Amino acid sequence: MEIHQVKQRLIMTSRLDGLGHLPIKVLQSVSGSTLVALDPIGVKNGDWVFTIANSAARTAAGDDEILTDLTVAGIIDNWPTQTE
Amino acid sequence: MEIHQVKQRLIMTSRLDGLGHLPIKVLQSVSGSTLVALDPIGVKNGDWVFTIANSAARTAAGDDEILTDLTVAGIIDNWPTQTE
Amino acid sequence: MEIHQVKQRLIMTSRLDGLGHLPIKVLQSVSGSTLVALDPIGVKNGDWVFTIANSAARTAAGDDEILTDLTVAGIIDNWPTQTE
Amino acid sequence: MEIHQVKQRLIMTSRLDGLGHLPIKVLQSVSGSTLVALDPIGVKNGDWVFTIANSAARTAAGDDEILTDLTVAGIIDNWPTQTE
Amino acid sequence: MEIHQVKQRLIMTSRLDGLGHLPIKVLQSVSGSTLVALDPIGVKNGDWVFTIANSAARTAAGDDEILTDLTVAGIIDNWPTQTE
Repeated sequence: MEIHQVKQRLIMTSRLDGLGHLPIKVLQSVSGSTLVALDPIGVKNGDWVFTIANSAARTAAGDDEILTDLTVAGIIDNWPTQTE
Repeated sequence: MEIHQVKQRLIMTSRLDGLGHLPIKVLQSVSGSTLVALDPIGVKNGDWVFTIANSAARTAAGDDEILTDLTVAGIIDNWPTQTE
Repeated sequence: MEIHQVKQRLIMTSRLDGLGHLPIKVLQSVSGSTLVALDPIGVKNGDWVFTIANSAARTAAGDDEILTDLTVAGIIDNWPTQTE
Repeated sequence: MEIHQVKQRLIMTSRLDGLGHLPIKVLQSVSGSTLVALDPIGVKNGDWVFTIANSAARTAAGDDEILTDLTVAGIIDNWPTQTE
Repeated sequence: MEIHQVKQRLIMTSRLDGLGHLPIKVLQSVSGSTLVALDPIGVKNGDWVFTIANSAARTAAGDDEILTDLTVAGIIDNWPTQTE
């Protein structure tokens, strides 16, 4: 899994039905790259989250038929200054 | 999922039957890398789209037997200047 | 599989049920990138481990329904100064 | 999918039976990295091709049991100077 | 598939049972990155090999239940100075 910060909700003019009804969020990695994930948790902009990729992303979205390769799986406490 | 801009339709002299009949598009990432995706939506050159990879890409193409590892899943509004 | 060093346990305010009850660890690669993995072995901070990705990561977590794309699969002896 | 140029046929002293009998080709990406793919089409050195990865690569090789994670899926016209 | 050179056998203090009994080898890519793969062939240190990733890696290890995302699939002749 990887750690990303939530930037915004993605607004689309057209999308495939198989994406279901979950919000789609734009995420940014620490290295600055941009990714897009389904959000079954309801995260807010600025939250640090961790994401699951590939086949587990579909299960994480609540249904193995959902079209996704990346899904938000949890919100992280006190990141990036977290200490154990 | 990732965000790409559509550059052109890919013209081939030979292709496997299992690719089906969807158009095949050349996409470019923000970092400049080039990828190829099936297009079940009918996107235009210059559109900003988001793409789904791996097993979900096959479902997104309309049939789990379609040969693809990347499929266009939606057109994005007002990208890259979009604000929420 | 890849080789990573264990940095800390990940503390979350919210997580999907499907992640199960295994600890979730933050790992760092030799090149400095940060990843997150399920830990069925009980590794300690500072341990060098190797990780399994994608569908095998789910099996490695003990149940193919577990939500993970990366699972710790073993602790390495004498890394990185190991010689055969 | 990605775009690569065919460099040569790969010569091996030992290979797993599950690879089947298709030729194995060394490909080079535009950025210079080297990959290896099964070739069910019969491409020539110097051809520009596009390749399919992961589970669809196995179907593309003609049998879901074939051992491959990358298969040549088509020959591209007039690349890289192609214009639509 | 990718091309790697075998560096050494990996020595572990703890490993999951599902990895089976094949040797585990440390590989190095041409670009210098380090990976770990199961070895069903019996390759020697210094050999140039090609590897299969993801679901096909499990089949290549001899059993779809084996825990691996990378398996050695063949030994290459005369690499990297090979000419066709």
